[in-house]
Amino acid sequence: MFVLGVDPGVSRCGYGCISDGCISNGGSRELSVVAMGVIRTPPSDELPTRLAALDAELRRLLAELRPDAVAVERLFFQANARTAMSVGQASGLVLAAASATGAHVVQYTPNEVKQAVAGYGAAPKEQMQRMVQAQLKLSARPEPADVADALALALCHLAMAPLQARIRAASGSGVAR
Amino acid sequence: MFVLGVDPGVSRCGYGCISDGCISNGGSRELSVVAMGVIRTPPSDELPTRLAALDAELRRLLAELRPDAVAVERLFFQANARTAMSVGQASGLVLAAASATGAHVVQYTPNEVKQAVAGYGAAPKEQMQRMVQAQLKLSARPEPADVADALALALCHLAMAPLQARIRAASGSGVAR
Repeated sequence: MFVLGVDPGVSRCGYGCISDGCISNGGSRELSVVAMGVIRTPPSDELPTRLAALDAELRRLLAELRPDAVAVERLFFQANARTAMSVGQASGLVLAAASATGAHVVQYTPNEVKQAVAGYGAAPKEQMQRMVQAQLKLSARPEPADVADALALALCHLAMAPLQARIRAASGSGVAR
Repeated sequence: MFVLGVDPGVSRCGYGCISDGCISNGGSRELSVVAMGVIRTPPSDELPTRLAALDAELRRLLAELRPDAVAVERLFFQANARTAMSVGQASGLVLAAASATGAHVVQYTPNEVKQAVAGYGAAPKEQMQRMVQAQLKLSARPEPADVADALALALCHLAMAPLQARIRAASGSGVAR
């Protein structure tokens, strides 16, 4: 299974794609990073132009990686209203483009990601970067933080997916709701 | 010139396309509504699915209408944080899709639209609907309000475009900045 994590943003949109080495959800789990990076758009361009460039790059990435699932940060309102709005616009592009490919699209809050990756919902950024590095056996800490956040989102989904699948199966059989 | 106004939203995205009857910016101005309506997405669907459906419908509309300019409401933070985020996500799709067609994409604040259409930056919704109806010689008030808002955005751009063109031309010639 390929899981693409995306940390949406207009100036910097972090992405990280992880393979668990399994065709399906079973078998051994040897995690490896398939791709990671940051999509940037120039602040000198106008917002519509930047959003169109980000959208085109996201769609190119999705077509190249063909992830089974895409994990995106779930947004809440932030102190900085201007930033929050452009993050919202970027997240709209990610969710729409990912959904259009047929991938399973899931959103996780920053707390859910920290809980799943560091075992602690208020883990600081640096600890998260170290945990991502350790779990993926990377030679260096993933930089910038947007890449670490994106990889953490993918790790979070890999941790949660088996549980979610069990809940869906149980709900479908009428055992639980 | 064809101007498409879009009032972004995930549940209801209003649009209205107005022609000024001119090939270029000159000549007589006989305004007519080329298309108007609302794109809706079912609240029962998940957000990524709704955004992908909205995106597909927007791109279909842009390909069909081929507007020269697209006027989109400029967003500010609202009282309802949940609504504001989904409006931000929808506006991201509109700006990116419109920009990708090569159309001139402009954003106007609600106050700018009210000032340009009703001559009063705090005009109430009902007055705006009546002004839109009168200026476009519509037999009935445009309903729902999202359609009136979208048509008002297009009217606002038609009112502002000649001024903007003069400013651009003067800036280019070094007369004004």
